[in-house]
Amino acid sequence: MHVSELETPALVVDLDIMERNLARVATYARERRLRLRPHTKTHKIPALGRKQIELGAAGLTVAKTTEAEVMLEAEPADLLIAYPVLGRQKLERLRGIAKRTRVTVALDSFEAARALSELGVDLGVLVEVDLGLGRTGVAPRDVPALAQEVVGLPHLDWDGLAFYPGHIKGTTGEDEAKLAKLRRDLHDILNNLTALRLVPRIVSGGSTPLLFHSHTIEGLNEIRPGTYIFNDLNTAAAGACALEDCAASIVVTVVSKREGHMIIDGGSKTFSSDRLVTGEAGFGQIAGLPGSVFHKMNEEHGYVDIGNCRTTPAIGERVQVLPNHICVAVNLHERIYGVRQGTVEQTWTVAGRGKLQ
Amino acid sequence: MHVSELETPALVVDLDIMERNLARVATYARERRLRLRPHTKTHKIPALGRKQIELGAAGLTVAKTTEAEVMLEAEPADLLIAYPVLGRQKLERLRGIAKRTRVTVALDSFEAARALSELGVDLGVLVEVDLGLGRTGVAPRDVPALAQEVVGLPHLDWDGLAFYPGHIKGTTGEDEAKLAKLRRDLHDILNNLTALRLVPRIVSGGSTPLLFHSHTIEGLNEIRPGTYIFNDLNTAAAGACALEDCAASIVVTVVSKREGHMIIDGGSKTFSSDRLVTGEAGFGQIAGLPGSVFHKMNEEHGYVDIGNCRTTPAIGERVQVLPNHICVAVNLHERIYGVRQGTVEQTWTVAGRGKLQ
Repeated sequence: MHVSELETPALVVDLDIMERNLARVATYARERRLRLRPHTKTHKIPALGRKQIELGAAGLTVAKTTEAEVMLEAEPADLLIAYPVLGRQKLERLRGIAKRTRVTVALDSFEAARALSELGVDLGVLVEVDLGLGRTGVAPRDVPALAQEVVGLPHLDWDGLAFYPGHIKGTTGEDEAKLAKLRRDLHDILNNLTALRLVPRIVSGGSTPLLFHSHTIEGLNEIRPGTYIFNDLNTAAAGACALEDCAASIVVTVVSKREGHMIIDGGSKTFSSDRLVTGEAGFGQIAGLPGSVFHKMNEEHGYVDIGNCRTTPAIGERVQVLPNHICVAVNLHERIYGVRQGTVEQTWTVAGRGKLQ
Repeated sequence: MHVSELETPALVVDLDIMERNLARVATYARERRLRLRPHTKTHKIPALGRKQIELGAAGLTVAKTTEAEVMLEAEPADLLIAYPVLGRQKLERLRGIAKRTRVTVALDSFEAARALSELGVDLGVLVEVDLGLGRTGVAPRDVPALAQEVVGLPHLDWDGLAFYPGHIKGTTGEDEAKLAKLRRDLHDILNNLTALRLVPRIVSGGSTPLLFHSHTIEGLNEIRPGTYIFNDLNTAAAGACALEDCAASIVVTVVSKREGHMIIDGGSKTFSSDRLVTGEAGFGQIAGLPGSVFHKMNEEHGYVDIGNCRTTPAIGERVQVLPNHICVAVNLHERIYGVRQGTVEQTWTVAGRGKLQ
């Protein structure tokens, strides 16, 4: 089938670009001797997790236990749940998952560690440290205490540390100073742990925006990028890819048009309402329509200003939109399509879609 | 099962409140002699569409053809697709849907009307007019021409007009002036159509924010509210409901905590990243936690400032969050739960979730 025959809205992935993205990061990780445990929240598709493993990933990462259940189909040797697992049902899910592969959980509280230990199942644990994002993670000074507690709990293997540098979007200006502080903090933490004879086997960090700077962070030996498989406008804004490296886009149809304006058949239920991290306006960039501004959305309608465009599509014609944030967009689609030179080669069900628990 | 046993995040609906919301609007429509054709995009659940029909709805509304296919299970006598239907596959879907019930399509272009006509299936058509939102809909002056064209096309029944007053969020200040203009524009359109002997049988409008003012719009005889079944913070901000009328909330678990701050296990993949229409900050209101501010989200993390709260939940405890915009939140959940006085009475699969085509 040709891509132009897909019913819209359709989320399509350029397979050549995706494969290039995957290979680039696999090569980088191998050359820099970084363990690669990609976050699968971006694609939520076991077949793509499998592809990452075949390219050298040591394991896969998920956020939630229900995502982990889905991703078992990729047969990872190792599955990291980069999220505190709390609550009876989730712990029971964890028990089932741990029967099928080695499971590591990242956590930041004694409560979460104790609950895992009481499950009576052997699990790896990464202590999460907050290196500036202010989300989950203990403060750097509290790392040794939590690591000691984990070491002392039955059934838990203390594997090391995890952090997520989501507060750093690039490596210039303010971000440069943040990255320097992160390096210092991590250095101090590792010194403190070493003094206590608590040497972490794994120091896991890395986000897509900071991906290719990972080797400059001393002590870091694992990365967990997610978005890099597809990339998006936010990745490009962070300087972590070029626009030509954005593999995923959404094909939509022009359903209505008036002077200087058109409506496309996708809105917040198709793209998500995530803004650009730069703070700039716009919900996506329309390929081949320079001057257009996708400035507003309702649930099923995208509003595009075409007042500055030389030629514009007619009602019923299609356009292709690069989304701001591909991870949340994929999660809105039942299936996505892999396309090579215009031909639909693959149809993938987004098996992890809506796996929130 | 008690609501406290649900795995989080869980979207729960208070059945007493939902039933009161449904009854209030059914009564209003009956008393004001307004035809009620509720938009099912809010719940996307056939059983709830059925309930709306049993309470007197003359039919149901959907946005997309795939949503229509799902909503056939509610056995509506009449199904309005309030969206231009363009493209081969969608027209074929329409053919199948029209075999099972009477279908009406709202449209705003001759292109869309002609494509419908060529399908060779008897369909109702509403001409959509833009009364100020600037989305779909022809300009008021262009209504007679498009109505004439529809009347002239085989297989199409011209049923009348549709509009969506989404630009009016209330009835005070600036909104009062917008509503007055809408009334004048509609009055003029109806006069023009009458002069041309094109009297519309149906004049369909109404959004949830403007719902209870529908009877003050002369000529309007049908309403299509969607959100009213659950309501949300945006509906309350518009003055169309009280906070006590918000039936749906999302139960989440506190997964991490530090001084003045906590993280809940739901973010943009659980709530959507829709902002408040008032422009105020915040992604939801946490019940029973006055002073808390749900100020930031990542995909699976909600950031809550609790610096001004007197008591705060511990790690592992749950809180209940009223979302900004329930329609996009429901679309992110595989299932939602109907709860009465703490007991889970119903589990509904969101059958229309992700039906974007």
